[in-house]
Amino acid sequence: MPVVQIDGGPLSVEKKRELCGNITEALSTAYGLPKSAYIILIRENTGENVGVGGELLCDRH
Amino acid sequence: MPVVQIDGGPLSVEKKRELCGNITEALSTAYGLPKSAYIILIRENTGENVGVGGELLCDRH
Amino acid sequence: MPVVQIDGGPLSVEKKRELCGNITEALSTAYGLPKSAYIILIRENTGENVGVGGELLCDRH
Amino acid sequence: MPVVQIDGGPLSVEKKRELCGNITEALSTAYGLPKSAYIILIRENTGENVGVGGELLCDRH
Amino acid sequence: MPVVQIDGGPLSVEKKRELCGNITEALSTAYGLPKSAYIILIRENTGENVGVGGELLCDRH
Amino acid sequence: MPVVQIDGGPLSVEKKRELCGNITEALSTAYGLPKSAYIILIRENTGENVGVGGELLCDRH
Repeated sequence: MPVVQIDGGPLSVEKKRELCGNITEALSTAYGLPKSAYIILIRENTGENVGVGGELLCDRH
Repeated sequence: MPVVQIDGGPLSVEKKRELCGNITEALSTAYGLPKSAYIILIRENTGENVGVGGELLCDRH
Repeated sequence: MPVVQIDGGPLSVEKKRELCGNITEALSTAYGLPKSAYIILIRENTGENVGVGGELLCDRH
Repeated sequence: MPVVQIDGGPLSVEKKRELCGNITEALSTAYGLPKSAYIILIRENTGENVGVGGELLCDRH
Repeated sequence: MPVVQIDGGPLSVEKKRELCGNITEALSTAYGLPKSAYIILIRENTGENVGVGGELLCDRH
Repeated sequence: MPVVQIDGGPLSVEKKRELCGNITEALSTAYGLPKSAYIILIRENTGENVGVGGELLCDRH
């Protein structure tokens, strides 16, 4: 059941596919459960909805 | 204040309405608070953003 | 894969068991997936870590 | 690293900008870390995806 | 219903009380709802359970 | 700022350290940001607080 929630910016499907495989690999090493047990949720956030250091990402530069 | 976050695939409004009522019922039985206290957040995820067993849901089949 | 996160106060194991069954029932009706697909995470929060209306729950009354 | 996730309804960019600044201010007072450490994620939910008191927000009035 | 989840390190009750008030203030300015609508969940994480830059916080220094 | 939340069972510090390194590696490949940008939150859940298939993990076997 380990469940992973990833919040980042937008990603291409290829990047998501690779990320999903690599994260699952990392989880398998840690928890030692069958691969089918791991669930990954990818959330793509726009720069308008993320603040770092008191500033929205869309306001940087 | 019990707060429930539900991550699944897309649902019709009818399904959401029914789900919301049933989850609130289940929470009332457990926590015994007035119905107005329960908050439910439904997140609809596309198959591209969910990984199960190291594979994106959109790649299955 | 639907994943449910429940944030509330402390519950007895009996209450958790019943809640888990009832929530899974509600999810099955909505998503129509085999029961084994549903994952529920229960988080028990102390009154010191929950704020409602600008006030910590532990400060009420 | 303090990370804040905010689930509410839709907001204008101006409101998000102000919210981000004010939340970061509040976090700085509590945790005393350099401003760059604070991360805020704003999630905008439609009334169809939020339930309060067993009812979807989009069904109210 | 806006719900805020805060993940940081441990805090004293006094700090939590102040944080809860200040965050609620910031939310009120943004969403314009009655104060009773805002829910805040504070999660206190140990350095062993937080990674920044590929390193656990408990391993720093 | 990518933020990862991992919900699983208890882990030793050694396992957490390795997991944190491997997850950060996987994130770097996907997002291409400097390592310091990635934040990982590990949540350790007891079998009493996790339901799979309508059953608490602590009730299995």
